[in-house]
Amino acid sequence: MSARAGIVVTGTEVLTGRVTDRNGPWLAEQLRQLGVDVGHVVLVGDRPEDMQGALAFLAGTGVSLVITSGGLGPTADDLTAEVVGEFQGRPSAVDPALEQRIAVVVERLMARRGWRADPDATAAGVRKQAQVPGGAMVLEPVGTAPGLVVPPSDGRDGPTVLVLPGPPSELQGMWPAAVAAEPVQQALAGRTELRQETVRLWGTLEAELAVVLRDHDAELSGLEVTTCIREGELEIVTRYAPEAQPAYDRLGALLTRTFDHTLFSTGPTLDEIVATGFAERGLTVATAESCTGGMLAARLTERPGSSAWVLGGVTAYANSAKEQLLGVPADVLAEHGAVSPEVALALAEGARARFGADVGVGITGVAGPGGGTADKPVGTVHLCVVGPEGPQLRALRLPGSRAVVRERSVTMAMHLLRVLLVGGPPA
Amino acid sequence: MSARAGIVVTGTEVLTGRVTDRNGPWLAEQLRQLGVDVGHVVLVGDRPEDMQGALAFLAGTGVSLVITSGGLGPTADDLTAEVVGEFQGRPSAVDPALEQRIAVVVERLMARRGWRADPDATAAGVRKQAQVPGGAMVLEPVGTAPGLVVPPSDGRDGPTVLVLPGPPSELQGMWPAAVAAEPVQQALAGRTELRQETVRLWGTLEAELAVVLRDHDAELSGLEVTTCIREGELEIVTRYAPEAQPAYDRLGALLTRTFDHTLFSTGPTLDEIVATGFAERGLTVATAESCTGGMLAARLTERPGSSAWVLGGVTAYANSAKEQLLGVPADVLAEHGAVSPEVALALAEGARARFGADVGVGITGVAGPGGGTADKPVGTVHLCVVGPEGPQLRALRLPGSRAVVRERSVTMAMHLLRVLLVGGPPA
Repeated sequence: MSARAGIVVTGTEVLTGRVTDRNGPWLAEQLRQLGVDVGHVVLVGDRPEDMQGALAFLAGTGVSLVITSGGLGPTADDLTAEVVGEFQGRPSAVDPALEQRIAVVVERLMARRGWRADPDATAAGVRKQAQVPGGAMVLEPVGTAPGLVVPPSDGRDGPTVLVLPGPPSELQGMWPAAVAAEPVQQALAGRTELRQETVRLWGTLEAELAVVLRDHDAELSGLEVTTCIREGELEIVTRYAPEAQPAYDRLGALLTRTFDHTLFSTGPTLDEIVATGFAERGLTVATAESCTGGMLAARLTERPGSSAWVLGGVTAYANSAKEQLLGVPADVLAEHGAVSPEVALALAEGARARFGADVGVGITGVAGPGGGTADKPVGTVHLCVVGPEGPQLRALRLPGSRAVVRERSVTMAMHLLRVLLVGGPPA
Repeated sequence: MSARAGIVVTGTEVLTGRVTDRNGPWLAEQLRQLGVDVGHVVLVGDRPEDMQGALAFLAGTGVSLVITSGGLGPTADDLTAEVVGEFQGRPSAVDPALEQRIAVVVERLMARRGWRADPDATAAGVRKQAQVPGGAMVLEPVGTAPGLVVPPSDGRDGPTVLVLPGPPSELQGMWPAAVAAEPVQQALAGRTELRQETVRLWGTLEAELAVVLRDHDAELSGLEVTTCIREGELEIVTRYAPEAQPAYDRLGALLTRTFDHTLFSTGPTLDEIVATGFAERGLTVATAESCTGGMLAARLTERPGSSAWVLGGVTAYANSAKEQLLGVPADVLAEHGAVSPEVALALAEGARARFGADVGVGITGVAGPGGGTADKPVGTVHLCVVGPEGPQLRALRLPGSRAVVRERSVTMAMHLLRVLLVGGPPA
């Protein structure tokens, strides 16, 4: 591909994982859709020399555009604009008009949040955020921080640097203006289409796929196939130039033929399939969760418009809650224990009845690390989905941490809902 | 600090954000605890030239150790061992004993799954995973992939490269053996203790902190202070060598003195404070959530042992559910609307009564993007916490996406619980 870009994500909080970076991947995907290839995302702390090193490295890879995110705040550890200006040979100075515009935004923000702040403190922060490298183009703030487009100083070679703020909402809000900026367009000249297709398998091992791909290596040239296992789902993402479309068609047919028993999607995610299924079939759902503590309800309600099919749910940690809020019979709890297929069924039926939903989901299990027994060790989970056609039960023995057991249980419940709504490979 | 390391996280699925990297931050924190500083984490796709570029960049920063994660699988896109071997001047060859051990694991997998594949292709996959750079040290597989310790070839300068598998459980399981390996110990020789302290403020603007830090710059030398705003919390993390302890003590006193109205923690996270508060005060809690759809219940039950204080919760999306499962009076819903302080109070009291809990939490709001009105726009959220001492109400008007409104609402509920349990700055 003729246009390549590199990404620098700044902030010690990101480097050390206190905050999970969402900007690098988001920018990489936006660039891919523009036909721009990304080879590296560099996470760097708030140290000027480390940031300079990252910029020099990416410039050295021959990219025509470097995008930075973060480091535009008012504190002294936010240094991106200054460091990028130096790197591009463009010393920074305060832009008085910009300083005024930022001051207005900050005042409005403080008024809305009702936050106290010393005027001098605020002014100093505003002044710092109004520092602009000489000759750089300013992108209007979406929040408080402006973006910057900083080409190399006259006569210099090297990539244009696009400086964007760290908060994802601000970065994403500024993106259209950033892409439209003339120097950015120039940096991305000659980009070419890069297609991407995704196939999702449920219950196929990566090693199994590896064998099949190796067997058909010759027919698949021109395809960049990457695979990853996530929560039991084998995701196969293929990137290719338009001329390799026939090769991708061969791969698609090969996967459909070979893995017909596990292939559940040629694009949409599990969550998208379930949401579309409820919307199209006009069914409603209610949940009854024990070990997953509301995670399934939270996941089902992530999507805008989900109130059309999600009536609600009950998190029933205590047995008394299982009895009183969901009508799980006390004798069933006593006879089989809270973690049992019988209780999973009673939970699903209880949710369905109490909320008057078409579909009820019940989850009960031992998430750990405590609470395990010889016959019901940590990771034992029973799920039940009850729909118009009756119940579907599933028993699991999941390895891993409390978080993993909870996540995998919710994912399995989503697969049970998928099968109920649209069929496909068994959950 | 005398020992520095760099981290390379491989995998196009990570570079493009389809999978969130958990290894880079985890490794950075492990290294910090060992007194090893990390300046860069590089995310790189499954392309040999990009990986070589990342290794060369980190080697150029003068680090004594480079750690890679991922790219050790059986698929053709997994190239780490081969690329690292080339980079260190140590061509790879099959380790027959290792090949046999991996073959056994794969055969066991195949037998368990009952799938058959072309033996030659299977053997090729095993052979690929058994490729070891000449003179490298093998770390026994935790899953199927072995780790590698690859020093530069004799006579060469440069960092030792520690090659670890991508699955976090395998990487973390292999870590103790990796750190104990003689070449790794040599690479980390002369490391020194690096202390880290965290202070958390609720409701202070970054700009306020910025000026306070600037004013006391002279007293704080030797401290690396980084700040980030996350969901309204201003987190101040300071890293320093032991000799700078007096300077940190001055900073701690300064922050406590200056921000006594917003400082709610000198260490533990909000979630840790709330969990400890429930445990120590012996109180139980139940939730009633509308717009947050179970996220608060899920967050409260993340912690092991939370079943001791979390009785459960109801996600009541539909008004009928609010009435029937939580006893919210129909006329209150009719008169004030579902998104109102009155309904938030009724939800909290309903949760408290129905679950027989000491504390009830109610959340109702407009998460958006739809459903907003002139007087109740998207982002309008009402929260209520009812405890033994009566109700605490809070009205919010949150900016941002559906996800942001939901997250911020849950965080505000956690702060209301914090104040009820342990006091401190108002929520």
